[in-house]
Amino acid sequence: MKDPIGVALVGTGMWGRRTAEAVRRSSSLRLVSCYSRNPEKRQAFAREFACSAAASLEVALDTPSVEGVLLVTPNHVHAEGTAACTERGRHVYVEKPIADSLVDGMAMQRVCQTAGVTLMIGHGFRRLGASRRIKGLIDEGVLGEIVLAEANFSLAGQLTPDKWRYYRATCPGGPLMQLGIHHADTLQYLLGPVSTVQGSFARLATEAEIDDVGIATLGFASGARGVITSSYVSPKTYSLRLFGTRGVLTATTEMSIWPEAQKMDPSTHLTLWTSEGERAVDFEMHDMLVDELEEFARCVRGEATPETGAAEGLQAVRVILAAIESHETGRSVSL
Amino acid sequence: MKDPIGVALVGTGMWGRRTAEAVRRSSSLRLVSCYSRNPEKRQAFAREFACSAAASLEVALDTPSVEGVLLVTPNHVHAEGTAACTERGRHVYVEKPIADSLVDGMAMQRVCQTAGVTLMIGHGFRRLGASRRIKGLIDEGVLGEIVLAEANFSLAGQLTPDKWRYYRATCPGGPLMQLGIHHADTLQYLLGPVSTVQGSFARLATEAEIDDVGIATLGFASGARGVITSSYVSPKTYSLRLFGTRGVLTATTEMSIWPEAQKMDPSTHLTLWTSEGERAVDFEMHDMLVDELEEFARCVRGEATPETGAAEGLQAVRVILAAIESHETGRSVSL
Repeated sequence: MKDPIGVALVGTGMWGRRTAEAVRRSSSLRLVSCYSRNPEKRQAFAREFACSAAASLEVALDTPSVEGVLLVTPNHVHAEGTAACTERGRHVYVEKPIADSLVDGMAMQRVCQTAGVTLMIGHGFRRLGASRRIKGLIDEGVLGEIVLAEANFSLAGQLTPDKWRYYRATCPGGPLMQLGIHHADTLQYLLGPVSTVQGSFARLATEAEIDDVGIATLGFASGARGVITSSYVSPKTYSLRLFGTRGVLTATTEMSIWPEAQKMDPSTHLTLWTSEGERAVDFEMHDMLVDELEEFARCVRGEATPETGAAEGLQAVRVILAAIESHETGRSVSL
Repeated sequence: MKDPIGVALVGTGMWGRRTAEAVRRSSSLRLVSCYSRNPEKRQAFAREFACSAAASLEVALDTPSVEGVLLVTPNHVHAEGTAACTERGRHVYVEKPIADSLVDGMAMQRVCQTAGVTLMIGHGFRRLGASRRIKGLIDEGVLGEIVLAEANFSLAGQLTPDKWRYYRATCPGGPLMQLGIHHADTLQYLLGPVSTVQGSFARLATEAEIDDVGIATLGFASGARGVITSSYVSPKTYSLRLFGTRGVLTATTEMSIWPEAQKMDPSTHLTLWTSEGERAVDFEMHDMLVDELEEFARCVRGEATPETGAAEGLQAVRVILAAIESHETGRSVSL
């Protein structure tokens, strides 16, 4: 058993808490320090998770025994946070999306390469046991040739003016950037790269500035077609369906468990329809956040490279940015 | 009890048979005559359904006691068949789509108006008990404001060179024109008119000329967004999901029953998710084909006008034609 990797967590909001809980579920990482701009929030967080509350980002990163940083900050400050980490030689795990612009994302890729540190993007959903099993079924040819994919991730966004997700400038693409992008990663993991994108967005029911519903229609380089849909103003749903020439596979998740990511697999049913009828498909359950954090620990130790690094993070965000561009121009966008 | 309306059936293929079986399930219509270009097929059909086999389309239409005609012919000959009916003052029920072009569809609308006969389009799926119940839930506000719709209809198309569905000229849009168009009608019945369309098609696995997978992304005049997906090369699926601000409603159908349309409702589950959790929604079962044929009989008697007449038929086909245009031009299309 190796010593756990010391990490600092930056950004103590809802998802920062979920990330810290995943650290606690793993023996590969140890939360040493945390930072939030709000002193009370970071103090409370530090008490709850038994780590030090840093007075500044720099202090958090400079804390002795911190080797890696978990950046769970708003998308538009991922780049500056990453740059601060690399100046100190810290490895970086950043919550998806890599950034809300390609300029920022590529800058992050560059500074981490230059500093020789890991940059890992938190695209955890491909690590679900259900996703791994689907990949296996595809690779085994059980579905035949995949021609179509349908994916949805929706939930009520609690969009209030104090949240960065409320504003177009800081949350372009709205629910598609925050939720649908998970499928942008998972679908490319399953079906290969997307080469063309159409997008359609609307602001219908939210008080916020952002669009609250979005669709990205995908053309994969393989020829397959796909669609990602997402709403920020309706009850929680998460689903994925693949249409192959031999079978149709559906993953449906009873999402009342969200945001307890470790309950995703236990709440998911995989169903396969073929010419022989319908059957349930078993799969091994994974704790997706622990899975990715433990890979991050191996990366910090030099034993692995990230499955979802900058290249994968950029490829996912490219899809969402292309959907936005398509919506704004009325044209299909090639990647 | 009124005397049944005498009808001639034109087109004795797979769906002609299904239509004749629906006539048999109804006491409002009586099959008097049938016509197919192939003498053996029409003789066999006439024997099976206890009607006369007409030697020509004209003979079928001129058969005494024929008041209405069930046109179950390929899409590209709907217009000429309708014209032949109106010359003889016969009322017309035509299987969807109204036609494969707006020129043909509008000509059909015009000649029927001029002749003072009914033109009814076989958009049966909105008549399913499940569809009627969904409309009721929307009208009651149970779902809140609808922001997003997802709809799929797929099946393996048995596309051989002897079938008109094999060719681009006679089946533009492939599965979206033949299957997805049902949702184009039902979604507009539920959510009002579509105003913008994006389309994405591909030919991946079929030997046929046509594209075998298609997606239409819809912008409704209400602001809601929607997507219709369809594959002609995968196992049978039919589903519909509506995302509202108060609830998400899913209709899933165990489609091994298809093409026995009267078994759709008994094979369908409606599930509603709200803040109070998940619950099944009961609904009254309908035989959608009998329902529309009986309405056609009332139209022939002058007691009703078609719920799905030329206007609805044109509006549904406009959506699919716009998806094709969008795919070909790479631009979003306004209706």
